[in-house]
Formats: sequence, C-alpha cells, structure tokens
Amino acid sequence: MTTEPTVSDKDSLPALPDRHRVVIAGAGFGGLETVYRLAGAPVTITIVDRRNHHLFQPLLYQVATASLATSEIAWPVRHLLRGRPEVTTLLATVTGIDANARRVLLDDGGSLPYDTLILATGARHAYFGHDEWEPFAPGLKTLEDATTIRRRILLAFELAERESDPQKRNALLTFVVIGGGPTGVELAGTIAELAKVTMPPDFRNIDTRTARVVLIEAGPRVLPAFTEDLSAYAQSSLERIGVEVVLGKPVSDCTAEGVVYGGEKLASKTIIWAAGVRASPAAEWLGVRADRAGRLIVSADLTVPGHPEIFAIGDTAAITAADGMPVPGIAPAAKQQGRHVAGIVKARMQGDTSSKPFHYKHSGNLAQIGKKRAVIDFGWIKMRGALAWWIWGVAHIYFLIGLRNRLAVAINWLWIHTRDQRGARLITQGRSNTDPPK
Amino acid sequence: MTTEPTVSDKDSLPALPDRHRVVIAGAGFGGLETVYRLAGAPVTITIVDRRNHHLFQPLLYQVATASLATSEIAWPVRHLLRGRPEVTTLLATVTGIDANARRVLLDDGGSLPYDTLILATGARHAYFGHDEWEPFAPGLKTLEDATTIRRRILLAFELAERESDPQKRNALLTFVVIGGGPTGVELAGTIAELAKVTMPPDFRNIDTRTARVVLIEAGPRVLPAFTEDLSAYAQSSLERIGVEVVLGKPVSDCTAEGVVYGGEKLASKTIIWAAGVRASPAAEWLGVRADRAGRLIVSADLTVPGHPEIFAIGDTAAITAADGMPVPGIAPAAKQQGRHVAGIVKARMQGDTSSKPFHYKHSGNLAQIGKKRAVIDFGWIKMRGALAWWIWGVAHIYFLIGLRNRLAVAINWLWIHTRDQRGARLITQGRSNTDPPK
Repeated sequence: MTTEPTVSDKDSLPALPDRHRVVIAGAGFGGLETVYRLAGAPVTITIVDRRNHHLFQPLLYQVATASLATSEIAWPVRHLLRGRPEVTTLLATVTGIDANARRVLLDDGGSLPYDTLILATGARHAYFGHDEWEPFAPGLKTLEDATTIRRRILLAFELAERESDPQKRNALLTFVVIGGGPTGVELAGTIAELAKVTMPPDFRNIDTRTARVVLIEAGPRVLPAFTEDLSAYAQSSLERIGVEVVLGKPVSDCTAEGVVYGGEKLASKTIIWAAGVRASPAAEWLGVRADRAGRLIVSADLTVPGHPEIFAIGDTAAITAADGMPVPGIAPAAKQQGRHVAGIVKARMQGDTSSKPFHYKHSGNLAQIGKKRAVIDFGWIKMRGALAWWIWGVAHIYFLIGLRNRLAVAINWLWIHTRDQRGARLITQGRSNTDPPK
Repeated sequence: MTTEPTVSDKDSLPALPDRHRVVIAGAGFGGLETVYRLAGAPVTITIVDRRNHHLFQPLLYQVATASLATSEIAWPVRHLLRGRPEVTTLLATVTGIDANARRVLLDDGGSLPYDTLILATGARHAYFGHDEWEPFAPGLKTLEDATTIRRRILLAFELAERESDPQKRNALLTFVVIGGGPTGVELAGTIAELAKVTMPPDFRNIDTRTARVVLIEAGPRVLPAFTEDLSAYAQSSLERIGVEVVLGKPVSDCTAEGVVYGGEKLASKTIIWAAGVRASPAAEWLGVRADRAGRLIVSADLTVPGHPEIFAIGDTAAITAADGMPVPGIAPAAKQQGRHVAGIVKARMQGDTSSKPFHYKHSGNLAQIGKKRAVIDFGWIKMRGALAWWIWGVAHIYFLIGLRNRLAVAINWLWIHTRDQRGARLITQGRSNTDPPK
C-alpha cells in the first residue's frame, strides 16, 4: 500500500483511477451526508477537511459552557468512513480551485483532480466589518472556539473570586451574549444556569448568583425564526432564570472593557459573539456571484452557474426555497442538499443528465432555554416547556453518531439535571491570567 | 458575601479570622488528601493551584493517546471542596514565600498569610540540562501536555497519508518514546496499539502497521522499579505488540529531525519525553537544601528544616524510607504524606507538638503494557498478563473521583477493547501543519 502514489504527487487519486472522481470539500453535515448517500456509486471519493473531525455543531454551546467534553460531539472523519474503501480522507485546507484544470488547490502546494466537485466548506462567524471586535467577543464555530469561550467564562469567575475592587469584580461577573438566535439564547440560558445553580456552593468570596447575564439582540425579538408567541415564551423563560434580554439595540463597539449598545456602555470582561456568520470564500475561488453573507448563489439544482460539475451545499450555498424564503443554515438543510447532490451524481453515472431542482423540506426549529425548557416549532405542531425540552434532548441524542457518545452525553445530562454538576469545567490552553480580555 | 475582603487585599483570609490558617500550595494527590484529612480541625484552609483542576496523572498517557477525554481524568478543585465552608480555593500561581512574614507570594502581587504552610507543588518533566530539547520532545505532566502529544501523534499519521516522499513518510511514521519507566512503557504500548490495531482501516495511502515505535531507556531494563522478571516480561510484551526496545543507550540529542542515541541517528517527527522530572522550586523559595532533582530535603516528620510550620510533601519533597530507599514520586506516597501532615496539624491544634516521623508504606507498582496486559508488584504478590490488566483497570477506575467519571472511563475502555475505537482522536489547539517538529 505504501508504494501507491499519494495526492501530493499532484497527479492522481490513489485508487481506482478509471472511476469518476468526486472531491468533497468539507466534512460537516452536508459533506458527510453526500459521502453516505454516494455509497454504491461507481466513483472514487476524496473528502478534504482542514480539521480531522466532524463536529456536531448544535451542541457546541454545551462544550462552551462546560456541560459536555469536546470528544463527545466530535468524531474523526476518517474513522467514520473506515468501512468505505473507495473513500480517501485528507486533512488539508482548500486554498482555491482551478476550474479549467478541474483541480482543487491545497495548502501544501499540491492539488486534487476532480470530475465532480462538491463545496461544503461551511461558514465562520462574522463581525459585519468589525473584525477588530473578535479578540474581545469570540464566536462559536469550532471546538477551539468552544474551549476558548469555556476558559473565559470559568476564568472570569476565578478572577472575580480573587478581586477586591467591586467595580472590577462586577465587570468580571457580567457576561454579554450578542445575538438572539438559537445559539445566543442557548448560551445565555446555560451561562445563567452556571452562575445561579452550578457555581454558588463552590465560591467563598463572591456570590455567583449576583452575576449578570445580558443577551443583546438588534432585532425586535429573540429567536426570529420561530413564531412570535414562542419568541415571547423564550424571552420570559430567559428572564425567569435571570437573563437580561435587550432588544432592538445593535452593538456599536466591543473592547477589552465591555460593549456599547444603543449609546450605553456596559462593563464586561466576557463577551460572546453569536450574531452572524459569513460563508467560506467558495464564491471567490470560482469568481461567481455571492450574496451579502458570502454564500455562493447556486442554480436550482445546487450546481454553480456555468459549472455543471461543481455543486455548493450547506452554509456555502445561497438558495431560495419554494415559499420564497432562503433555505436556512441548519444541519437538516445541509443534509437534504447532500442527499440531493448525491442523487444527481448517481443519476449522471447512469446517463441521466437532466437538471433536478432541489426542494427544501423544513422539518422544524428547536432551541433549548436553560434548565429543562425548550421551544419547538415543527410547523404542524408548536411546543414549549418541559415536554419540549425532553423532545429536544432525545432528538439531539438521536442525531449523535455512535452508541458511546450517546451514552456519554446522556450520562452528562443526567448529572447536570440531577446533581447540578457539569462534567467539563476545565480551564485549559494556557492558564493565562493574561488572556484578553483582562 | 461579596463585601468580604479578598486575598488580594494582602491582608487576611476571608472567613473565620481567629482560626489557625493553613495554606496548601498545590491541589495534586498530596495537597487534596491533606485538605480531606483536615476535615473537622479548627482551622481555615486556603488551597492554591495554578490550574483550576485536580488531575489524575496515572491515566494522563491515555489522554495523550486519544483513549480518554480530558474531562474524564480532571475535576475542578473548588467543586471537589464545595462542601467544606472553611476551605477557600484559589486559582493562582505561587511565586515565592516570605518565611519571616509567613506569607505565600502570588503572581498577582498579592500574598496569603499562613500559620501552617504545606508545599505540595509537584514536579515538571526535566531535560537534564537540555531544555532546548523540549520543543521537539514534549513531556507529559499536564492536560495541555497530553493534548499537545495527542495532536502530534495524530497529525503525524495525517501528514504521512499526504506524504509522497518515502523517507519523509518513514520519519512521520516513527514514534520515539524516551524513558522506560511506567509512563514511557504505557505510552509506547498504547501508540503501538493505535498504529497496529486502531488506525489501519482508516487510512488509504499508508499502512499504519508499518509504523515504528521505539522505546529508548538509558538504563539496563524497562520498569526499573519492578523486579527483574517483571521487567523482562514487560519488555517481551512490548516487543510482541511491535515496540522496539532499546536499552543502555542514553539519548544525546533531540531535534526537529529526530533523536541521536548511542551514536546512532533515528529520523522521527514525533518524540515524547518520559525520562525525568524536576521538582517545583519550593527549596529555592525557602533557601533550603534540595536533592539533585530539586526536591526539598525534609526532616523525618516532613517539616522543612528550621521551619516547623512549613511542610513539604509529594514530588516536592525528598525523604528516605525505612528501607533506605527514597520514597517514590507516586500518588500513594503523596497521599500518605498528606495524611501524615494533616495528623500533625490536628495534634498541634490539641497542644501536642511532638515530632512524629513519617513512615512510608509501599503499596505496590502497576503498569499497563498495551492491550490487556499489565504487570503488578504488590511485594507480597507479583502478577502479569491479562488478570493483572483487569486488576490494573479496576484499581484505576476505583481511584477516579465520582461515579460519572468512572462510568465514562469504563465505557471508553469497553469500546477500545471490544471495537478498537478510541474516543478522543481529536486534533485541536490550532490545526497547524506547521507544528514543530515538522
């Protein structure tokens, strides 16, 4: 095996060189679903990701708030695909595309030839032209983001325990979450739980129940993707557990000292950004049109205009659903698109090159709000409260991969909700009393 | 509560100011045991650690080899002590001691007054005057060390999958462990298992079974603390699972290209240091005598000579047992010393200031060697093989703290040994193809 040419040879895929070569960039929900759905097709597949793991992003906020361990929501991509000999997994960063030569360019100077290319490279958080805010208001997209935010939250309590100046202590005990979508709501709710329920018995000099958790949303309500009454319920649930909800006030500055919103200054040492994302630069690589969030505007069949051999899916792609609304950037949408693209590729292998438009089927929105409350909007049914929380929990455990991780997450949640213990209260990556913001 | 003066006031402990003030530096096995054993004594306790977590070091190599998650072997110190209102936990780094003023100096410029001080600040790995080797041969003492080593091991396989130059690929697939004590043996055995059992189905361009794992020990045998026949068994077990054991050859250089030992060069991109430790600078803080490994030479009752109010325990202290052998730097020894010191402090509180010499009771040595093999030397009984491995496993799960972590570790081991799946194969902390050594 070791004498096979490798991809850095800039020449060929290692196995089955006569087969149609599919390259998939990105091992998120969309990319992975495409691989799964291409099982049995007469193709060779190379899946490239700059991380070695697939990440279950819907529970990432639970890593950031010390509820779950990193390994409980992440899986090595190549291990997930070990049973597929026609699939090669590569840890590499895509730096561009040579569409004429049909090659994906990689960070090591090598390139990957393709017959069909699927761009599923996702999105990062975005600061709307204020990238200078990032050091003070980290966003939440990767495992490193999550452990960074976890460190900042836990360190703020630790420093407050040592701080004698009441003003500084208050700034340390003020947590600001910017953005009222599901991630912002879930973060704010869980931080409030940490401060009000988990932490109090552990400290001697501070009363962590006095901590302020402020959720700032520029729009008129939290969870704008939900119905108005579920939004209202979410807001009152947050307020009940001690979150201060600020609506209609965009943030105009983030610094080491705190945030400015609606002309007011709020001193805070821990700010978290959950307000917006920007797609990876797939549209730039190809020189095609993107929407304002940088998402590549695809044709109805998810191909890139002018490139029937290139598809874009998930957070990388902008497309409008039948109801005129944009397809949302959520896991089920990415998976449906992966399934659709795999279907087209399989059909083409059998000589059917007809264009098949993608039809998005919205399965629903879910969000957890602090301890044992959630909102669910499946369209045909809307739910809130404790039963919604149970459905939320079961659904998320169901969508995890593998029995071990399901067991591990279930055990952690059992401990959190029966004993107020969180499994992953670890400050790692430099013990740094000098972390910005300090 | 929030109006209490905090320790940064440089003045007083927050609660019960009339009580005898015990300060414990270090929340390892020794420091924590001291706190536990001081329960009920009429004292206030402040325990200071520069990490927020207590770490179960005997299983740290399993984090480094992707078997366990960080949170499964670490617990927030303040949470462990939440039920003890007289105990304050501080995240801070000790920078010195003012023995005349009886104050511990902290990194934030503040200080902690004490009536009794217990130094349990542990050890770091040491390079015998070759600190320049550290970037190329990281050691294993902290969670960050473990995730660094994990990243390097996993990244080496990933880069080898992309590498077309056979020489470079061989260097990437050569893993060197320096030091034949329990940590070195356990690391080498587990890396071999990773390469020979866990990894093969996951790669397409390389055969991970061709990876070399080389264990280099300067002395005449591995596991020198065990009997000669157990050493011989350990060595043959390692060789059976594919580890190359090199004895009697000290390492003379570590670089980005590999190691030099006994005049020979070995090209390797992944070198791990398990060859020696050096105590924290407690002896320097006090200006008292230390042994060659920097450990403070304590009196028979574990006090610091000239300072009956200061004790040193665990890896910080050097003391000789009744049989003339030095007390080993292992968890049971540190715990016994913590218990002894707590007993002295309690006796003094009751007016008994007599000197009580510490008597070390050696409970035994254990080491795991790859899959389902271990060696055990309890003195009265020596064991090896599969039964020893079961005892090793049960003993380690028993000594973990809390049911959740015991469950989590047991589940992980079940998966490793029934399905060859490792739960924590994550490359985190920067995706860095530019990690040294590259």
